[in-house]
Amino acid sequence: MSDFPKQLLESPSGFPDFSPEESIVLEKMLAVIRAHFARAGYSPLETPLVERPEVLTAKAEGEITTQIYGLRLLNPVEGASDEKGLALRYDHTIPLARYVATHARELAFPYRRYAIGKVLRGERAKDGRYREFIQADIDVVGDTELSPLHDAEMVAVIADIFSTFNIGPFTVRINNRKVLAALLRSNGVTDEQVPIAMRAIDRLEKVGREKTLQALIDIGIAEAAAHELLESVSMQRAPDETLGFLKSAQLDAEGERGIAELAKVLEGIRALGVNEERYTIDLSIARGLDYYTGTVYETRLDEHSDLGSIASGGRYEDLAASFTNQKYPGVGISIGVTRLLLRLIKVGLIEATASTIAPVLVTTAEPTAMDVYLQYAATLRAANIACEIYLADKALDKQLHFADRKGFSLALIAKQEQLSAHTVMVRNLKTGEQQEVPVDALIVMVKKSLA
Amino acid sequence: MSDFPKQLLESPSGFPDFSPEESIVLEKMLAVIRAHFARAGYSPLETPLVERPEVLTAKAEGEITTQIYGLRLLNPVEGASDEKGLALRYDHTIPLARYVATHARELAFPYRRYAIGKVLRGERAKDGRYREFIQADIDVVGDTELSPLHDAEMVAVIADIFSTFNIGPFTVRINNRKVLAALLRSNGVTDEQVPIAMRAIDRLEKVGREKTLQALIDIGIAEAAAHELLESVSMQRAPDETLGFLKSAQLDAEGERGIAELAKVLEGIRALGVNEERYTIDLSIARGLDYYTGTVYETRLDEHSDLGSIASGGRYEDLAASFTNQKYPGVGISIGVTRLLLRLIKVGLIEATASTIAPVLVTTAEPTAMDVYLQYAATLRAANIACEIYLADKALDKQLHFADRKGFSLALIAKQEQLSAHTVMVRNLKTGEQQEVPVDALIVMVKKSLA
Repeated sequence: MSDFPKQLLESPSGFPDFSPEESIVLEKMLAVIRAHFARAGYSPLETPLVERPEVLTAKAEGEITTQIYGLRLLNPVEGASDEKGLALRYDHTIPLARYVATHARELAFPYRRYAIGKVLRGERAKDGRYREFIQADIDVVGDTELSPLHDAEMVAVIADIFSTFNIGPFTVRINNRKVLAALLRSNGVTDEQVPIAMRAIDRLEKVGREKTLQALIDIGIAEAAAHELLESVSMQRAPDETLGFLKSAQLDAEGERGIAELAKVLEGIRALGVNEERYTIDLSIARGLDYYTGTVYETRLDEHSDLGSIASGGRYEDLAASFTNQKYPGVGISIGVTRLLLRLIKVGLIEATASTIAPVLVTTAEPTAMDVYLQYAATLRAANIACEIYLADKALDKQLHFADRKGFSLALIAKQEQLSAHTVMVRNLKTGEQQEVPVDALIVMVKKSLA
Repeated sequence: MSDFPKQLLESPSGFPDFSPEESIVLEKMLAVIRAHFARAGYSPLETPLVERPEVLTAKAEGEITTQIYGLRLLNPVEGASDEKGLALRYDHTIPLARYVATHARELAFPYRRYAIGKVLRGERAKDGRYREFIQADIDVVGDTELSPLHDAEMVAVIADIFSTFNIGPFTVRINNRKVLAALLRSNGVTDEQVPIAMRAIDRLEKVGREKTLQALIDIGIAEAAAHELLESVSMQRAPDETLGFLKSAQLDAEGERGIAELAKVLEGIRALGVNEERYTIDLSIARGLDYYTGTVYETRLDEHSDLGSIASGGRYEDLAASFTNQKYPGVGISIGVTRLLLRLIKVGLIEATASTIAPVLVTTAEPTAMDVYLQYAATLRAANIACEIYLADKALDKQLHFADRKGFSLALIAKQEQLSAHTVMVRNLKTGEQQEVPVDALIVMVKKSLA
């Protein structure tokens, strides 16, 4: 008798199980992401989940430093492997930086890579955040320099992916931190105040105008300047108008460089034919992390902006600065797949109802004809039609109930009468319609029914 | 200046980085596995890397108990999440057992699932084993009972996958532990000696005939009986002859049940049309783990048997016995992807030479025509042709060198002359041949060249 405590059987808080239905949707989402990353010329780089603590802490900043998981052996024995030097990655960027620093000579630059996989963070339980989640990242790393057109390509990739998901309208919001910093300086914000003010503006959408204004004033910015700043960064304009406004704002040299980068990014996005409704310049986007030095991105669903950003990233001047003196500028963007998918399911934008990835169930009405049914299944599979065959000894109505419950599209049925006539009934489980076809015509008929 | 110690930049021992070339081959291998799993009606189940220690240790046996990694926070702060109850999975079977025990009411049985992902084991460093590796598993779980035809289907799936990999001839070796145990008993081995004798026989291929004979004698088995046993389990026969031999061996009732299961598995494999050269009955296969109770599998490359088994598994009477009193028999098989892939590359059975997953490079000979080149790239991608566009400011010959180095198949070239004529040179980088085509015909031409 098992007396295992039931409460220990639920996965630990922050480490979600995906149900079979959710797992299928996840797999489909990952397949779309993988295909689009590859299509745009990003190739996979598979680094381990485990990194050395020294590597993970070398460039960590802020709360993340207290969230890194190290490993320990639960029951170490003498001569056991040393696990003190082992910890779990919390993003895909540090492993990339380490890999580039170590293997630069084997890489051809610009180096485009994607990484799709789990990362882990010991977030506080009370925040209800995931501690293990799937991130899907693309990055491009240059040797010494890297064209802003790479920043443009990422917008096209993200727009392609979210259009394919078919989850309603969305907008990639683009900004440039050089521009925002110069805009702050032109309003009298000092160099020391700039990073703090940027973080305050970054929270504008979350906390609202009043609180942001107060935050800016608290930093020591004059009230009038704070007002004007908020006015400037929250105006809704077409990209060209925003560029026009910036050009007329008489920013300093760094600001001008930022404007030129932003203009180049926009030019690239247009050349790539991205739908104009899918992107905008949003001068209030700053991204919290100070290592972004140019372009920054966020992406929101227009009708579900409470979801927060579903794809974020930006440009960093020096990817591997902690590890090497060679300069590798980069740009990257990341989709937080776990959070996105589970929220999309929750708000009903994605359906997770089928618990079979295969569309066809081969039923087995006559237990003595198992060989024939197995042949049917093998024939379908050889024709690249995914199918399950029902192998438990149950009556046909039970099998059809199983088919409905799992969400198959088609059931193939062959009772004695069909077996004798070398035919199969192809039943559409959504409509209830069925059709008897000769075995020779089975593949054609099934493909047609699934099309 | 970075003075980060170089030796800390290599990934820790047992946690391999895949190079870009290896990562691409890995991705292709995983895509094949995923597709074949799905085709045979197995659906994904995504459970976390992190499980509770109590769950992981509930049914662990042998050396694995000392290899389980627990988590700890590197720099805990007050109010930090409690990580004492967190550990890392070492296989996909325990998470499946936990999930089934917890969510049985939501599942339709027989429940087919696949799991592809990392598992971690604190193996001793001196064994040179991987501590983090990718396992690709399929399992079917029944409610109370489960047909042996499920065992047969797994052989077909494995045979399909390894045939697709195109890595030379291989053999799935099938046995049944009930049969082997009865064969031992019929040679005078006592019930207590059976599990130890099975483990000795399981090592036959590894340690050779003499040592196995001695091991059996050391257990207390009479020399003549030990001789006869080894004779019986190592004879090379066609499956039907082996079945004939077993039927004539007058085994006990459990042995007869095992023979009936084995016969049913063989029948299923034949009905599924698996090539007869790809499987055999091998009575010496036992698998170390005592929880296998019926069918057991191993798979070897005929010409590289030193690689060991590349896909192993078997039938267990009661998957979730540690967690629930409800009986869930199951059968599963697992491909050790990391070990397999890295060995196949090492022995030259798989090539890992290209560092681009996209076959086409759009070159950018004229810096003033970037918009045009970006349009070409977008057009290719919209036609589902994966391509990279070269965005660094380098001369064309440097770009073509980059293309060669990364292993692109085709380069698209448009100098001023082609730009004016609205044509593109399509250069085959393997043969050096090139052809100038009108822009309108570009997609057709590229698709043809890649076919």
